[in-house]
Amino acid sequence: MPHTVELLAVGTELLLGNIVNTDAQMLSQGLSDLGLNVYYHTVVGDNPERLRQAVTVAKSRADIIITTGGLGPTCDDLTKVVLSEAFGKKLVFDERSADRIRAYFARLERPMSENNLQQAMLPEGCTVFDNDWGTAPACAFEADGKHVILLPGPPRECTALFRNRVVPYLRGLAEGIILSHTLKIFGMGESALEAMLRDRMNAMENPTLAPYAKEGECELRITAKAGTEAQAEALLAPVCEELCQLLGDKVYGMDVPNLESVVLDLLKKTDKTLGTAESCTGGLIAKRMTDLPGASQVFHGGIVSYVNQVKANVLGVPQDLLDQYGAVSAPVAQAMAQGARKALGTDLAVAVTGVAGPTPDDRGNEVGLVYVALAQEGGVQVETLHCGTIRARTRTVAASHALNMVRLALQGN
Amino acid sequence: MPHTVELLAVGTELLLGNIVNTDAQMLSQGLSDLGLNVYYHTVVGDNPERLRQAVTVAKSRADIIITTGGLGPTCDDLTKVVLSEAFGKKLVFDERSADRIRAYFARLERPMSENNLQQAMLPEGCTVFDNDWGTAPACAFEADGKHVILLPGPPRECTALFRNRVVPYLRGLAEGIILSHTLKIFGMGESALEAMLRDRMNAMENPTLAPYAKEGECELRITAKAGTEAQAEALLAPVCEELCQLLGDKVYGMDVPNLESVVLDLLKKTDKTLGTAESCTGGLIAKRMTDLPGASQVFHGGIVSYVNQVKANVLGVPQDLLDQYGAVSAPVAQAMAQGARKALGTDLAVAVTGVAGPTPDDRGNEVGLVYVALAQEGGVQVETLHCGTIRARTRTVAASHALNMVRLALQGN
Repeated sequence: MPHTVELLAVGTELLLGNIVNTDAQMLSQGLSDLGLNVYYHTVVGDNPERLRQAVTVAKSRADIIITTGGLGPTCDDLTKVVLSEAFGKKLVFDERSADRIRAYFARLERPMSENNLQQAMLPEGCTVFDNDWGTAPACAFEADGKHVILLPGPPRECTALFRNRVVPYLRGLAEGIILSHTLKIFGMGESALEAMLRDRMNAMENPTLAPYAKEGECELRITAKAGTEAQAEALLAPVCEELCQLLGDKVYGMDVPNLESVVLDLLKKTDKTLGTAESCTGGLIAKRMTDLPGASQVFHGGIVSYVNQVKANVLGVPQDLLDQYGAVSAPVAQAMAQGARKALGTDLAVAVTGVAGPTPDDRGNEVGLVYVALAQEGGVQVETLHCGTIRARTRTVAASHALNMVRLALQGN
Repeated sequence: MPHTVELLAVGTELLLGNIVNTDAQMLSQGLSDLGLNVYYHTVVGDNPERLRQAVTVAKSRADIIITTGGLGPTCDDLTKVVLSEAFGKKLVFDERSADRIRAYFARLERPMSENNLQQAMLPEGCTVFDNDWGTAPACAFEADGKHVILLPGPPRECTALFRNRVVPYLRGLAEGIILSHTLKIFGMGESALEAMLRDRMNAMENPTLAPYAKEGECELRITAKAGTEAQAEALLAPVCEELCQLLGDKVYGMDVPNLESVVLDLLKKTDKTLGTAESCTGGLIAKRMTDLPGASQVFHGGIVSYVNQVKANVLGVPQDLLDQYGAVSAPVAQAMAQGARKALGTDLAVAVTGVAGPTPDDRGNEVGLVYVALAQEGGVQVETLHCGTIRARTRTVAASHALNMVRLALQGN
C-alpha cells in the first residue's frame, strides 16, 4: 500500500485568511488513524498556473495526493481540470452523477442552472464517490503510479465524503486494515498521562498508543493493524480494557465526541433531568448541552447569574451568604446549585462561580479560582479549582469539570 | 518592495491533525492587509530533510518566506538550523536575547534549563524581534534576494510578534504604507453586498474594497496605499463615510471585533443593563456576552428555558399562551422577554425561541423558524427569522440577530 500523503487545498479564501484550513486537520487525523503518513499540506489559490506547479511538486514527493476545494460550479472546476491534465486524463461526462445532481435540486425544489451539470464532468475511469451532502461528486483515480483523490472544500461535505467514501476506498488499497479506538480522559494532564504510559508505549508495537492534549482534556488513541476488522478488534480489546482499568473513572468514554454527549446519554439512561446555574461560565455549560440535538428531553435549562442580584432573586441564594462569603465561595456555589435545582425542577443541578479574569474580584480572589457544586437528592457537593489566568481556558475547564461531576454522579447511581 | 509570500509551518502535530493551522489564517489576513500576496501555505513536519526540500521549493517561488513553529528548546531549533543553512547563514549566540530569556524565567520564578539558552542562537546579522510573550526570540534576515522571517508556533506568541514586530518591519520594507478599515455588517448577505457594490469596486483603484462572508455576517475591507499614514487615512475617510451612509444601520461598527462587543460598549455608554431568555440558542447569547471581560457591569445574566416548565415557572410565561400558541411563537417570545426583564431586573431583555432542529417541533413548525423579542421600558417588539436547516448556524444567526436588535434599540436611544 502506498504510504505517504500530500494534502493540497485549493482556494484563494484560504490564502486571504478568510477561512482556516480545518479540512486539513480532519483529513490528517483520519489518515493518521489509517496508518498513512501525511508529510505535507499545501495551500494554493484559485490560479491554474500555480496549482499546476503545486501538483508537480506534490507528484514528486507523495504516493497519494488528496485535494480539497475547487470543485464548485462557479470556479470552472479548476481542480478537476488541472489535476486531470497533470495526470493525462480526459474529463468525461458522467451521466449517473448528472442524474444525482438533478435529483438533488429537485429534492430541494430549487432551480438548477446549467453550470451545475459541469460538476458531472469527471476524469475518465475514475472511482466516483457519491455525494449525499452536496452537489459536487468527489472521485479518485490512479495514474503514473500515484493515487489522486478529489474532495469538495466545504467542511461538512468534505468530512462526510472522507468518512463514508474515502476511508473504505483507502482501506481497500491496503493489504490489512487499521483500526483505532480513542479513550477520552478528563482530570489528568497529557504529560502525566505520558509519564504513566511511557514504558508501555515504547514496548508496544501492535497496537500502538498515542496521547493527545485537547483543551483541558486528553485523548489516548489505540491503533491496531491486522488482516481483518475482527482480528484488529481482538488486538485492541484487551489493551483498551487494561487501560480503562488503569485510568479508572478518569476515562469518560471510548469513541465518544465529548463530555456533554456522555452526560446527555447518561441522563437519558438513568431517566434524570439536569439544570445549571452559571456565573463565570456565563451560559457555556447550557450552550454545550444544547449543542446536542435532543437535549430538551433531559436538560431543563439554566440560570446565568452574572450579578449578585440574580443569584439572590432568581436562584434564591441567601443575601447573608453573599455578604459573608462573597459570590466566589463554596457556600454560594452550593446555594446556587440547590436554588437552580428548585427553580428549574430538576433531579440534578450544577453550579459554577469563579473569577474568569483578567483581574481578581473585589474580594481579592485570584484569577482562575472556581467553585463547582452539584446538587441532587440527598445533598450537595462542592469542588475547588485553580484554572490559571487565561479567561477562555478557565471558562472551558470549569464547564468541563462541572459536566464531569454530573457524569460521575450519574455513573455512581 | 517584494510582493509574494509563502507561509511555511513546521510541526508534526499539524500533520497529525492534533492542531489546526490558525497561524496561517492570522498571518494571511495581516499580510493581505499590508497588500502582500500570499501564494502558498506549506506545512511540513519536524523532519530536517523534508523541511530542507520545502525551503528549496519556497525559495524558488516566493520573495518573502515566513516560518512558524520549530523554535522551541526541545526540538533542536530545527527551523533556525535548516533555514540558516539553506541561506548560508551561521547561527551565533545573541547575548541580549539570552539575557531576556534569563529575565523571563526569573520573572515567572521558574527554573531555567540550559537548553532554553539554545533559543538565543540566531542567524548572524538578523533583525531580532523581542518576544514579550514567550521565550523564543523571533527574527528576520535577508539573503539571496529573499526575506526570511522566523516566528514561534504558539498562536498567542505568533500573533503578538506578528502584529507588534513583523508588521512594522514589513512596512519599513515598503515605499509607502497600506492601511485598512473594516466595516462589520449584519443583516445583509455577501452576495447582496457584492451586487450593490460591484460597479464601485470595479471602478476603484485606491482605496480598494473587498467583501468577506462570516457566519451570518459580512465584512467590507477598505484598503488604501499612500506615502504616510495620514495620507492613507485621508483617502479612506470619505470612502468609509460614504459606505456607512449607503449601508445605513446595517453597519454595526468599524474595526470592532464582533456584535457582542458593540452591544457591551453601547450598554456602558447608555448606562443600561441587559438580560436574556434563551430557548433554542440555549445560553449562546449569554455565553457570547460573557466572553467579554467587564460584562458584569451591564449584563445581569440570563435564563435558559429549554422546557416549557422553566418558561412558565422562572420566566412567568402564562400557561395559556404556551397552550394556545406553543413555545415557538411570537406571543411566547414576547412574554419570555418581558419575564426575563422582570426576573433579572434589567432595562432591556432579549428572548429567543425557535426550532434548532434537526426535526420540526411537535406543532410542525419548520426547522430554522425562530422568534426574537426585545423588551424595554415602553414595550416589546418581536421579529421572525427563517434560519435554514443547519442547527449550529441557526443558533449562531439567531443569537446574532438578538444582539443586533439590542444594538439598534440602544443606538435609537
